[in-house]
Amino acid sequence: MSHGVRAAIIGATGYGGAELIRLLQAHPLVQITSVISTSNAGAPLAEHFPHLQEIVLDVLDVLDVDLIAGKADVVFLATPAGVSAELSPKLLAAGLKVIDISGDLRLKSSADYEKWYKKPAASEEVLARSIYGLSEVFGDEVKGSDLIANPGCYPTATLLGLVPAVAAGWIDPSTIIIDAKSGVSGSGRGVSLGVHYSEVNENLTAYKVNKHQHIPEIEQALGRIVGKPVITTFTTHLVPMTRGIMATMYASVNGEHTLEDFTQLYSQYYEGRKFVRIRKNGKLPSTKEVFGSNYCDIGFAVDERTGRVTIVSVIDNVVKGAAGQAIQNLNIMQGWDETTGLLFAPVYP
Amino acid sequence: MSHGVRAAIIGATGYGGAELIRLLQAHPLVQITSVISTSNAGAPLAEHFPHLQEIVLDVLDVLDVDLIAGKADVVFLATPAGVSAELSPKLLAAGLKVIDISGDLRLKSSADYEKWYKKPAASEEVLARSIYGLSEVFGDEVKGSDLIANPGCYPTATLLGLVPAVAAGWIDPSTIIIDAKSGVSGSGRGVSLGVHYSEVNENLTAYKVNKHQHIPEIEQALGRIVGKPVITTFTTHLVPMTRGIMATMYASVNGEHTLEDFTQLYSQYYEGRKFVRIRKNGKLPSTKEVFGSNYCDIGFAVDERTGRVTIVSVIDNVVKGAAGQAIQNLNIMQGWDETTGLLFAPVYP
Amino acid sequence: MSHGVRAAIIGATGYGGAELIRLLQAHPLVQITSVISTSNAGAPLAEHFPHLQEIVLDVLDVLDVDLIAGKADVVFLATPAGVSAELSPKLLAAGLKVIDISGDLRLKSSADYEKWYKKPAASEEVLARSIYGLSEVFGDEVKGSDLIANPGCYPTATLLGLVPAVAAGWIDPSTIIIDAKSGVSGSGRGVSLGVHYSEVNENLTAYKVNKHQHIPEIEQALGRIVGKPVITTFTTHLVPMTRGIMATMYASVNGEHTLEDFTQLYSQYYEGRKFVRIRKNGKLPSTKEVFGSNYCDIGFAVDERTGRVTIVSVIDNVVKGAAGQAIQNLNIMQGWDETTGLLFAPVYP
Amino acid sequence: MSHGVRAAIIGATGYGGAELIRLLQAHPLVQITSVISTSNAGAPLAEHFPHLQEIVLDVLDVLDVDLIAGKADVVFLATPAGVSAELSPKLLAAGLKVIDISGDLRLKSSADYEKWYKKPAASEEVLARSIYGLSEVFGDEVKGSDLIANPGCYPTATLLGLVPAVAAGWIDPSTIIIDAKSGVSGSGRGVSLGVHYSEVNENLTAYKVNKHQHIPEIEQALGRIVGKPVITTFTTHLVPMTRGIMATMYASVNGEHTLEDFTQLYSQYYEGRKFVRIRKNGKLPSTKEVFGSNYCDIGFAVDERTGRVTIVSVIDNVVKGAAGQAIQNLNIMQGWDETTGLLFAPVYP
Repeated sequence: MSHGVRAAIIGATGYGGAELIRLLQAHPLVQITSVISTSNAGAPLAEHFPHLQEIVLDVLDVLDVDLIAGKADVVFLATPAGVSAELSPKLLAAGLKVIDISGDLRLKSSADYEKWYKKPAASEEVLARSIYGLSEVFGDEVKGSDLIANPGCYPTATLLGLVPAVAAGWIDPSTIIIDAKSGVSGSGRGVSLGVHYSEVNENLTAYKVNKHQHIPEIEQALGRIVGKPVITTFTTHLVPMTRGIMATMYASVNGEHTLEDFTQLYSQYYEGRKFVRIRKNGKLPSTKEVFGSNYCDIGFAVDERTGRVTIVSVIDNVVKGAAGQAIQNLNIMQGWDETTGLLFAPVYP
Repeated sequence: MSHGVRAAIIGATGYGGAELIRLLQAHPLVQITSVISTSNAGAPLAEHFPHLQEIVLDVLDVLDVDLIAGKADVVFLATPAGVSAELSPKLLAAGLKVIDISGDLRLKSSADYEKWYKKPAASEEVLARSIYGLSEVFGDEVKGSDLIANPGCYPTATLLGLVPAVAAGWIDPSTIIIDAKSGVSGSGRGVSLGVHYSEVNENLTAYKVNKHQHIPEIEQALGRIVGKPVITTFTTHLVPMTRGIMATMYASVNGEHTLEDFTQLYSQYYEGRKFVRIRKNGKLPSTKEVFGSNYCDIGFAVDERTGRVTIVSVIDNVVKGAAGQAIQNLNIMQGWDETTGLLFAPVYP
Repeated sequence: MSHGVRAAIIGATGYGGAELIRLLQAHPLVQITSVISTSNAGAPLAEHFPHLQEIVLDVLDVLDVDLIAGKADVVFLATPAGVSAELSPKLLAAGLKVIDISGDLRLKSSADYEKWYKKPAASEEVLARSIYGLSEVFGDEVKGSDLIANPGCYPTATLLGLVPAVAAGWIDPSTIIIDAKSGVSGSGRGVSLGVHYSEVNENLTAYKVNKHQHIPEIEQALGRIVGKPVITTFTTHLVPMTRGIMATMYASVNGEHTLEDFTQLYSQYYEGRKFVRIRKNGKLPSTKEVFGSNYCDIGFAVDERTGRVTIVSVIDNVVKGAAGQAIQNLNIMQGWDETTGLLFAPVYP
Repeated sequence: MSHGVRAAIIGATGYGGAELIRLLQAHPLVQITSVISTSNAGAPLAEHFPHLQEIVLDVLDVLDVDLIAGKADVVFLATPAGVSAELSPKLLAAGLKVIDISGDLRLKSSADYEKWYKKPAASEEVLARSIYGLSEVFGDEVKGSDLIANPGCYPTATLLGLVPAVAAGWIDPSTIIIDAKSGVSGSGRGVSLGVHYSEVNENLTAYKVNKHQHIPEIEQALGRIVGKPVITTFTTHLVPMTRGIMATMYASVNGEHTLEDFTQLYSQYYEGRKFVRIRKNGKLPSTKEVFGSNYCDIGFAVDERTGRVTIVSVIDNVVKGAAGQAIQNLNIMQGWDETTGLLFAPVYP
């Protein structure tokens, strides 16, 4: 592994951390050298995740920047909002590359961050330095960077589904309505009545309507594409399943564009990008078709009656929406093929 | 039970039939006198539905109009598309009252029916005679009628959520987008890969986008309200749960109307109608909050940034979306209180 | 309602409390006069249970024995272990009838209680006074009593499935093995990692093997039947569903008894008891066939190869395993038909 | 890939076939050269399994032995009962190695096969030639073989959980009771009311009690271990989840053996076998802890009160219970490390 990297994972006892471990232990160019948990340091990892017994043998490390710097080249932060804002500068100062899976470094405007996250923002310097790692759209900026703000799960599904049409001017950004649905793992491993099995099972809930912190992230990225502010309607729903996000998106079509046109536009935009798969002939993807994998599958319906296009985009929120795209970004940062270690098929059924 | 009625149920081995049986056996003014199945006549009902063992003791009857006319006053049709178009005239001719849960008699235009259902429509006479039984909106027409076209599950949730705002002119009908989600029982008890547990579980699927046969039903009712044709965007999703429909609906608000305004408008529109419950203060209903009951719960979010209202409406598709509303219509037809036999609480959790 | 009773419910914000409310609001001879929560007094009930909006309008009362005594005739305790031991004597002293859904008063031996529950037991006096309310087996003792220890969910399914065979001497008690499975609602509304949706969904877990506090309850009841101590093997599993318990029970058959013999033995034992339904011809019940209802369904398989009988018994843990049987016991206490207010069909599907 | 093999998969449109494709496409020494479906030849594989779009590009081949012989070295049969009995001899005659995932070649007694499967058995010659591929127990016989009868899903979980104790004489085989539970994928992709989502969801069912065709398979293997016939009680349950099997097994302990003794016995028996993981200190495995992986996890409880041991064994039925163990057997046949291509972590949550 002379050309490989050593990786540390902070927040290893959450779902994002567990998925990083699953994926990195199968990555040919990465060695996990430290799994870190502030609250559980000293305990064997398998005590928190019995499924990793005899697979990852490590004991959880304390969070100590010097210790990490001695063991690792790159650090993945799978931490709650607020941690990375403070921690990233120290890790960078110690010479580490940082890939942050939290939302702390995604919004360029600290005012926006504080409005939507209700927490103090990271420093302007760190925000300016961080690269928004939507691999298939902004991957060029990722290459050579040492600080990645990994996109949120909803924004990943949404933006990959909207960007080609928005960039081509085929849809009117002011008409975009995003009806998003997520499995429960998206809200993490913390306990609350909202994730109690008996409350979630056989139930469908809409939540944080017009208030979700992923709204400014989506609007910031779309604004970059069109060159002026974009405002969207964005609704999130909790679906009784563990993994998977579907964004069903509606917009008015500018001019005349058929289903075949959209299919072709997207196929061209994502040509050569293995992790985005475009469904043909009006077929629509379902979340299970990407379960456990790094794929984002996209399909379309164009309605002549209303002049609207419906775009359906699905990902596994824990993979393409978190750990998988983070590793994809590592691959790009390092100059490796972006698919290294990630080309496994979805688990079906 | 001198003032009660005797009821026959055709299609008793499907989910709609089973729910009619569950609800009617608890109705103080109805006696089930015949459960009918063309394909399984002669078998005990409990062979098909062991949960009804020792509750409904009947053996399944053949489908014979004279036999029904001798046993029953009212007939519920819980049959696949195409059956009622042919059968209803005969039942009416035999002096029976008919409540049809299928989609056969809902569309006034036979051309529309044939376009969306791909089947021959009922006769113009029957279509003209049938009353569209959306109880809280068109209940006045139900009273005294002898032929009810019971609304579809999606249209019930959608229309109850849209009508007050459309009727008040508060939203622009041309901007309405309906993102609907349903549990699996909505597609009935027939077997197919699409309802295979291993395909549906831990999966979310969009289907029949812009092609669902409930679209013309919704548009016909909205058209009646506004007095001119309405065209909508309507998407359906299959959610991994058995019961429940949520319609998340988006529209541009005409003028300035706050969340409180919408809450008040709807509370007034549905005043005195026990089965529609309006959530206050921006709270949104979830499907489990109406599970097993005849309630339709509605909540709102108004977004000043986009000028749009989001309306969330939920029902149990098997109750308010089928058997429950059918019985509510029977109550109205008979001049009974519409809640008779239906005022039971949702099953939670 | 001159012959009816007024009921108070303590612990109204848990699942047992919610189910008592659902069932009692439909009971023709009971009026709910107080819903009580120590931790949430003063809040409207619907804030905790939106599904009860406009159904039960009450605000949660404080826990005050005098207040209760002024409002109610009977009190249901749906409280965690430890509460009833202390509270029951005070409620009895105030002249109230008490039906305790918790485990506090079920074990006659305070030493057993303290060993299995790890809490101080109720006083010997209270333990002596309480009647174990397994309606179909010990219902005669319930009549006229004022203090009922309502059976646990697992013991209800298990004992109804075992008692006739044990009482008849057809199975060897020392060979009994009980493999029990439960939905998640059985562990209540409290939050923990063990009930986190993402941990429970698509998962099957065995827990508390040989350590469950329902073991001594089962053994005490079986011991009464056979007249000497009985020791059993009892395993519990958590199944990814909300409601339902299945006990699959194994025992060696004494002598020659066929499937038909067992079917007949049980049919006779439970003759006239509407809530126990015996499956014929080797058919086995599934949990969904009793969902939401007060039924206990039982089926058998007899294996000549091994000389063992397999008995499958299912209930809805929240109804027959808690609130439903509690009301059944109220009916019996009051001298009403035991089915009063409880004869509704299971919700299927 | 000079030392690799070319593989054909018959039955590629079922779940076993799909899983073989998922696992083999990531195997470093195997190339899939033909995916075969009798009923769907000519169609692109992705039409049946959209999750494989752009991963496996093949069109489905017809079933033609000569064609297979020209393209492949080894054939996996993921076919319904009855196919392999007839097809295996032809494939062997064409010089192919055969790994049969169906039940056709597992029972050495053709009378047993015909009694339990209700179909004509394979020829005595084929039955004699086939090796029962329970990798960790009979792996020595697999090496160098060209015809593998891959074990059933229930027998894999059951036997791996019982064999060490039975072989050591620590438990009395005549007292073994196996209470097994499976997710729905175990019954394949065929449609029926029994796998209808609305029937399975929120439901727990016992089925084929004492009649499951895996009973003689389990008894045959245990009989080989103890050297005389073994008869067991075996019950199967359908659990509302897609993947996963748990076998909860009960037996009387011969002599005095503690929890620690059992833990040590099993750890030693499976020493060096990566895919069997023994839980320590009375911890019990859950099915999700092996989801999507080739692991079999085993835990214990020993009850001094009853003198019985409870053994809990879990697998993913589609991996270790089918495709994964089949590839493990291929690895062993070829003299490769048995873990080649299979050392990926479970998907959690």
